[in-house]
Amino acid sequence: MRSGSPGNSVVVLLSGGLDSTTLLSIFKTRGYTIFPISFEYGQTHSRELKSVEDLCSYYGLKGKRVKVEIPESTSSLTGNAEIMARSLEEVGSGIPNTFVPSRNAIFLALAASYAFSIGADRIAIGVNSVDYSGYPDCRPEFISRMEETVNLALGKHNAIRIEAPLQYLSKGEIISVGKTNNAPYELTWSCYRGDQVSCGKCDSCLLRLRGFMDAGLQDPLEYREFPDFYLEWIKRG
Amino acid sequence: MRSGSPGNSVVVLLSGGLDSTTLLSIFKTRGYTIFPISFEYGQTHSRELKSVEDLCSYYGLKGKRVKVEIPESTSSLTGNAEIMARSLEEVGSGIPNTFVPSRNAIFLALAASYAFSIGADRIAIGVNSVDYSGYPDCRPEFISRMEETVNLALGKHNAIRIEAPLQYLSKGEIISVGKTNNAPYELTWSCYRGDQVSCGKCDSCLLRLRGFMDAGLQDPLEYREFPDFYLEWIKRG
Repeated sequence: MRSGSPGNSVVVLLSGGLDSTTLLSIFKTRGYTIFPISFEYGQTHSRELKSVEDLCSYYGLKGKRVKVEIPESTSSLTGNAEIMARSLEEVGSGIPNTFVPSRNAIFLALAASYAFSIGADRIAIGVNSVDYSGYPDCRPEFISRMEETVNLALGKHNAIRIEAPLQYLSKGEIISVGKTNNAPYELTWSCYRGDQVSCGKCDSCLLRLRGFMDAGLQDPLEYREFPDFYLEWIKRG
Repeated sequence: MRSGSPGNSVVVLLSGGLDSTTLLSIFKTRGYTIFPISFEYGQTHSRELKSVEDLCSYYGLKGKRVKVEIPESTSSLTGNAEIMARSLEEVGSGIPNTFVPSRNAIFLALAASYAFSIGADRIAIGVNSVDYSGYPDCRPEFISRMEETVNLALGKHNAIRIEAPLQYLSKGEIISVGKTNNAPYELTWSCYRGDQVSCGKCDSCLLRLRGFMDAGLQDPLEYREFPDFYLEWIKRG
């Protein structure tokens, strides 16, 4: 099955969060044929996979969900440690215990395999290195080396491009881009704790709320409790 | 769990075939602590996973088996095309339909994640570019770029080495190396068809039998039928 048309089709890594949803809205606005791919890798916050489904329905896309085991992960994201509660200042300093070793290398290698098989010539990933969580596999050096690597693996010279259009944007800027493209943020999920309501305490909730604040927008999601900085901002009107 | 001791532990990609078994025998002979990893990726020749178990028992090792879905693979190895029957001359000319796109990139990214989690500082893979089956992800350029990529993904400089000691050896030379290290080739499996007895017709059987012939040794496995070149060699005594 080679259903992608060259030059106009993209495999989008969709996690159901803010960044990948913004990515989806960008390629949708540009008229691309989109093949979303998501991963079931034992994440405790599997609530995000519900968001992936909702986003695919919203955009009328057929998503591909791929199961992959992460061997011996010690990450809190795969249930092997406690999710930390840190201040916004601490977030981004050092590699947190949510780090799943080599996750983006695993996901991009799988996405490249998918892109090759369906004939898509690009892959989009929502990594960004400004307000990022300290993960080394979100940096531009990694992404560009990975692009070279998958093309060598596939025996093609520059056949597949890996695009990371959010790479140099802050979370607030990303949300502004998404708003311009009418990204349905009410369908997204960011919280590392996979409950019904976002916790408002984990790294991911803090970065998200700070992003909405910076973009001058209120987050449409429900939270168990808001962090002080967000409450104060809301109060100031 | 960080059970590997630095400098002396290795994650070995074990498929149950000749090459990875030779690899195992090399690191065993050198006294390394070995962590075999194997992949359940929907291969039709899942018979090889039985060989992985037998090899782990033989060497007294605890293997790690990882499940990973290959999205939309069109490969005959994952049941989506007929295994080809070609002559030995045709093998190695062009990419065959057994190609699973980006497979070694997927496997090495997962192995790197495993190595990082258990504290092993090297990964060994049995690729070789002499008598190889035409797969681009067996070439030295791919392996060295992949090594750079996983270290960038893990945020470590040269923390994990990817070794491919069989890279420049022919199949016959590989078998000679294995024999020197008492590799139990009777426990291995190479045939792409996952039956009880090797077919003697697929690329993998042809390369294997040619390798044994070149090494001056008889293959201990049973075959449904032998190719002419091997039969003639046996007859010549």
